Amino acid sequence: MNIARRPRVGHIAFLNCLPIYWGLARTGALLDVDLHRAPPDELSRLLVAGDLDIGPITLVEYLRHSGDLLLIPDPAVAADGPVLSVNLVTKTPLAELPAAPRVSLASTSRTGVLLGRMLLEDRYGRKPSYTVTEPDIESALRDADAAVLIGDEALHVFHAHRTPEPGGLHVLDLAAEWKDWTGLPMVFAVWAVRREYAEAHPGIVKDVHLAFRDSVQRSREEIGEVVASAARWEPFPPAALAEYFERLQFGLGERHLAGLREFASRASRYADIAPLRADGPEFFETPGGIGGARIDPEPEIRL
Amino acid sequence: MNIARRPRVGHIAFLNCLPIYWGLARTGALLDVDLHRAPPDELSRLLVAGDLDIGPITLVEYLRHSGDLLLIPDPAVAADGPVLSVNLVTKTPLAELPAAPRVSLASTSRTGVLLGRMLLEDRYGRKPSYTVTEPDIESALRDADAAVLIGDEALHVFHAHRTPEPGGLHVLDLAAEWKDWTGLPMVFAVWAVRREYAEAHPGIVKDVHLAFRDSVQRSREEIGEVVASAARWEPFPPAALAEYFERLQFGLGERHLAGLREFASRASRYADIAPLRADGPEFFETPGGIGGARIDPEPEIRL
Repeated sequence: MNIARRPRVGHIAFLNCLPIYWGLARTGALLDVDLHRAPPDELSRLLVAGDLDIGPITLVEYLRHSGDLLLIPDPAVAADGPVLSVNLVTKTPLAELPAAPRVSLASTSRTGVLLGRMLLEDRYGRKPSYTVTEPDIESALRDADAAVLIGDEALHVFHAHRTPEPGGLHVLDLAAEWKDWTGLPMVFAVWAVRREYAEAHPGIVKDVHLAFRDSVQRSREEIGEVVASAARWEPFPPAALAEYFERLQFGLGERHLAGLREFASRASRYADIAPLRADGPEFFETPGGIGGARIDPEPEIRL
Repeated sequence: MNIARRPRVGHIAFLNCLPIYWGLARTGALLDVDLHRAPPDELSRLLVAGDLDIGPITLVEYLRHSGDLLLIPDPAVAADGPVLSVNLVTKTPLAELPAAPRVSLASTSRTGVLLGRMLLEDRYGRKPSYTVTEPDIESALRDADAAVLIGDEALHVFHAHRTPEPGGLHVLDLAAEWKDWTGLPMVFAVWAVRREYAEAHPGIVKDVHLAFRDSVQRSREEIGEVVASAARWEPFPPAALAEYFERLQFGLGERHLAGLREFASRASRYADIAPLRADGPEFFETPGGIGGARIDPEPEIRL
């Protein structure tokens, strides 16, 4: 009697992860997984708790729990420069931000808000006081000088204030600021497998990894269709969607790993995050060699 | 600015609905829906509460709320004879069941347990006392003479006791009994759309209906692959899966509607269910004519 069960896999049902889902919905790959669609913070929690086997986890939570997890090299959510949807929104130009500003942190964000703190404190030399607020612009700026926002709401604010207007809000792209500061890409989320699951079911993990990799590859090849599909439902015009998918990167190359390590090294100064192992992060590896370091010499996936 | 949102669609993540999901996972149709996978009782509740727009609903709950809902002719879950997974399990042969037996009703079942009550009381002439129990065979038979079980658990019990053994359990297929009694197929679940959603978004409902219809059609054409895919994960051998998918019917033809009406007419004697309208059930219809009665003269979908 067959005693297998489908792997429990997480999927972020947000616009920025549509290219990750694109191929999965066309190849039958979804028939072989028990897919859980949820917001990213819930998926992170489920993976850490062992209620998912494989799934996305925000970088900060991965760093907190890296002993229990192995990275899968695709997909990931990263950007090498502007990402458009992880923003510091200020009421004044950055130069006029008070020395001790009141800063709101979106409750749904873990990695974005820590990136914002690093930049505010270490790069812009401020001494902010922080409040966690609902992740919408009105709540976030009601009693604050600035706010870190992520996701679709941040993308809306970016488009609404892209052209500066007198008295308008100012939008600083935190992935662009990170690159300007460190020269490196910023990794916001990684996909990981629980260590004990990978040890028990390496073949399944390999299959899931390949399905994700093929899905992202296919979305890159069919980017016009991805944009048209998203434009049917999402409150952004096709040109904005195309620009967004162009900025997002869905795999981990060597430069992304350098960015991840740099973030990890700085993060331990801000939060209860142990430093990454010297040879970290640790990847899932199979005898077949598809895990671990990517094989192609220019491994970045650009849509 | 685009203000559309994807329709919120329910899917039963159970073995018997795999053929309904089969094509959806291969055509990209899932990209255009906000899919909620859950057990059937939860999906029924969400559709009735307005937290889903389109989805499966167990027949009994449809009959309770038919004023708010319009039927979509595919998919459905029905059987014209044995269904294998809706069973009355007895400790003795049926003829030896006491006149006032203690009968357990699986907590996850609505339509199956009402069908069981009808047969026990009106066909077999018993006066049972009922208890709702956990939907597993051990809990169900601990303090009872018989139990109504549904789904994968019922299918397991059917296979374990298919060949009668001395002292073994006796399994009565309630869909086969229904057909023997009425001459009609039994409809266990229908797919419905909320009336106000159908009025506001007929084009979307039509698209979702066609996606489901195509998905079931494809699973019929690729039944060997469906069985092989299910056999990879489900605790049943391929021959048992093939037999099960052969028994299940996934559309509503005229005979199924007659069976549905017959059940509705009897159900109102047992539960707080108003009689169906004389011209009911009411179907979603579009000007294009794909809603309502099916076009093909022999409308049963047999895998």
